[in-house]
Amino acid sequence: MKRTKIKDLLHGEGGEVLVKGWVKTRRDSKGGFSFLEINDGSCLANIQVVAEHTLPDYSSIENQLTTGSCVSVRGKLVASKGKGQSKEVQATEIRVYGSAPVDYPLQKKRHSFEFLREIAHLRPRTNTFGAVMRVRNRLAFSIHRFFQDQGFVYLNTPIVTTSDCEGAGEMFQVTTLDLSNPPRADGAVHGKIDFSQDFFGEKTFLTVSGQLEGEIYAMALAEIYTFGPTFRAENSNTSRHLAEFWMVEPEMAFYDLDDNMDLAEEFIKFLLSDVMEHCAEDMEFFNKRIDTTILETLKNIIDNRFERLTYTDAIHQLQKASKIFTYPVEWGFALQAEHERYLSEKVFKKPIIVFNYPEQIKSFYMKLNEGGETVRAMDVLLPNLGEIIGGSQREENYEVLLQRMRDKDIDPEEYWWYLDLRKFGSAPHSGFGLGFERLVQFVTGMENIRDVIPFPRTPKHAKF
Amino acid sequence: MKRTKIKDLLHGEGGEVLVKGWVKTRRDSKGGFSFLEINDGSCLANIQVVAEHTLPDYSSIENQLTTGSCVSVRGKLVASKGKGQSKEVQATEIRVYGSAPVDYPLQKKRHSFEFLREIAHLRPRTNTFGAVMRVRNRLAFSIHRFFQDQGFVYLNTPIVTTSDCEGAGEMFQVTTLDLSNPPRADGAVHGKIDFSQDFFGEKTFLTVSGQLEGEIYAMALAEIYTFGPTFRAENSNTSRHLAEFWMVEPEMAFYDLDDNMDLAEEFIKFLLSDVMEHCAEDMEFFNKRIDTTILETLKNIIDNRFERLTYTDAIHQLQKASKIFTYPVEWGFALQAEHERYLSEKVFKKPIIVFNYPEQIKSFYMKLNEGGETVRAMDVLLPNLGEIIGGSQREENYEVLLQRMRDKDIDPEEYWWYLDLRKFGSAPHSGFGLGFERLVQFVTGMENIRDVIPFPRTPKHAKF
Repeated sequence: MKRTKIKDLLHGEGGEVLVKGWVKTRRDSKGGFSFLEINDGSCLANIQVVAEHTLPDYSSIENQLTTGSCVSVRGKLVASKGKGQSKEVQATEIRVYGSAPVDYPLQKKRHSFEFLREIAHLRPRTNTFGAVMRVRNRLAFSIHRFFQDQGFVYLNTPIVTTSDCEGAGEMFQVTTLDLSNPPRADGAVHGKIDFSQDFFGEKTFLTVSGQLEGEIYAMALAEIYTFGPTFRAENSNTSRHLAEFWMVEPEMAFYDLDDNMDLAEEFIKFLLSDVMEHCAEDMEFFNKRIDTTILETLKNIIDNRFERLTYTDAIHQLQKASKIFTYPVEWGFALQAEHERYLSEKVFKKPIIVFNYPEQIKSFYMKLNEGGETVRAMDVLLPNLGEIIGGSQREENYEVLLQRMRDKDIDPEEYWWYLDLRKFGSAPHSGFGLGFERLVQFVTGMENIRDVIPFPRTPKHAKF
Repeated sequence: MKRTKIKDLLHGEGGEVLVKGWVKTRRDSKGGFSFLEINDGSCLANIQVVAEHTLPDYSSIENQLTTGSCVSVRGKLVASKGKGQSKEVQATEIRVYGSAPVDYPLQKKRHSFEFLREIAHLRPRTNTFGAVMRVRNRLAFSIHRFFQDQGFVYLNTPIVTTSDCEGAGEMFQVTTLDLSNPPRADGAVHGKIDFSQDFFGEKTFLTVSGQLEGEIYAMALAEIYTFGPTFRAENSNTSRHLAEFWMVEPEMAFYDLDDNMDLAEEFIKFLLSDVMEHCAEDMEFFNKRIDTTILETLKNIIDNRFERLTYTDAIHQLQKASKIFTYPVEWGFALQAEHERYLSEKVFKKPIIVFNYPEQIKSFYMKLNEGGETVRAMDVLLPNLGEIIGGSQREENYEVLLQRMRDKDIDPEEYWWYLDLRKFGSAPHSGFGLGFERLVQFVTGMENIRDVIPFPRTPKHAKF
């Protein structure tokens, strides 16, 4: 007989069933039976199993039916007479796959998220982490569906890269050299490392972004997206930073900045609608236990057109504000989190897209506007979160791009292939990046980003 | 006006259209017009554009309409009078986004795959690589659909890991230490490296598999799958090896080895059927240009039940063979590629699943059969390829697993969390791994695995 998932049982018709899962709680009745709450991860809800003490061999397993044990239950699915659940299973046979001794760390009481991080191998068995992972799963699939439905091609850009343009100090190095005695170029003890002897024959790093490679494929297949791990070796111990995280980066030929903003807005709205529809039970849980405003916040985003304003207008808005900011509000300076949140939360009370940023605070590849003072960059800022998406139209003009690289001290030789894209069949194109864990964090209302990824990597932590 | 993708144009109804893409070829007629073949990556086929030389400003762009240039064409979609295409666009306006000078490397003539690897930033514009990437995209999406439809949860296991059980020699090290002058534990020039000062506070590597972490989540959510990059620092310069490749690893609680084999077979058949249905044009191309047996091979796999035989039976079959093998055929020795291919191609002429391998040639985590001589491992072997999937039922018994680790010199202390899964609510469970690029290689018939991944990483090569 095949097991039925609890998700399906709860909408099932009754009859003989086989359930498998983990015992969350057990309650003994004086009437000669026990109630077991069983969960199998298919949904947040447990199924109640009623175990009569007259079951065959019951006395031999009774002691093993404790919180955390894993069981297989055959029985009859019936309408429940008790409160709190509509269906229950009247067991006719119970088998214990694995017991859970009294030192099982996940006993009934509530545990702090900090403690649960120490037992990341058991925390997926809790209500919160089960719900987070189902929501994360749905969001990941929605990302694929959104792009696939529109004919975008999923692209796996490389993880190991020789390109270090975004600042070598923030990148992880990848090597097979013997660190305790690496080959030296001149044979001297403190000489330069001879990377020609390394696995890839040169110095290699973990990628910080697949964008540049994404542009290669956009210049051939027109619309592509990446969705893969990226890395930052920043020593940031905050609730918003991970050293290893997943990023989504669409890149589209023939899109200008307006098209790019349209796509970003449509994308966010699609993801939020989809997760509210398909993870209704889990989202109710987050709204009840984690952040009581989360459903309202998501609805507000879905229902409102994102306000679009230039960086220059954003500065004007901030200068008009009565609020005193910690960081200076002045044209040419980056917008800080306090500025971004003030604009989206206080001024517009909805998502905003700020675009046309000063060229000197943005990357070399962003398309220069006429006049040369601003570039076609955009940031999508959400209330309660801040930046969720950053993107731009890319500079497609060879000469302009070359000059921008020189101005920003980037070696054009290293990016010969990137320049080639502007030399051979160049086209206007745009793209953006979305940090996946930031999205999951926002959707679930979880405070710490370490709690929305299975095994977080942060400074001094790479356990499991 | 919005551009129409060529894929949709070819099935379009006619009328005013806007096409954007890259010129593949141009042919000039004596009648005062030119034929441009345009491709936008949405499909293999080009659309033919007819450009009358009387078009406004035509003389100013005429020289730029060369192979590789990028254009925007407004015009009328009509039935074509010429041979070789059913539809064409009669241009009313042509705009050149980017020209392609005469040194554009992808001129009309055929190029070797070796040469194209040197220009990996342009090769996606060729017919073959466009087709490979569309098939790769579809297979990736099919993998998600297959598991999502059955309620599996997509899991992102970590890329950076401290675990080196599968042999540190084959792993890449990840570090932020200054290689030319790393901190030494005892301060001496040649002393041991002090990894407590490294980013993660200990020695870290790139993952070779997400399986062990996958088991963690299977023991909570019952059915999960990973799909992400994995790494091998093997110095293998073959047409079947990459240092960086994508792997799919489902892991399921309550599955025994039979269930595991059922899932693997169903999985392969689903993927092949799905890609034949959704990439019919590209698959015809591969069948014509790359391997004229590929469609027949795929159909044969879809239509036949995979033959299942034990390792012991496989050895008997091989010993009966008249063929002389290079490697010994003897119980206890690993099956080599020549053995695997002989069995699937000559003996059974269809996919086979070999299971119950000798315990001494398989990993510590595989479930020991009664008698202790074999473990519940399985390999799915395809004709013309060999191993596509390797998997096993996992050892769920704490004491047996501990003993197996000791026997194989694996430090149980390092795997305390893995052992914990057997201590608290253990359950029978199984899983397998599929190398994604091997699958793409098999489906497309491409000879070299470097040609089915956008930017291959192999010894001494990490370009782009």
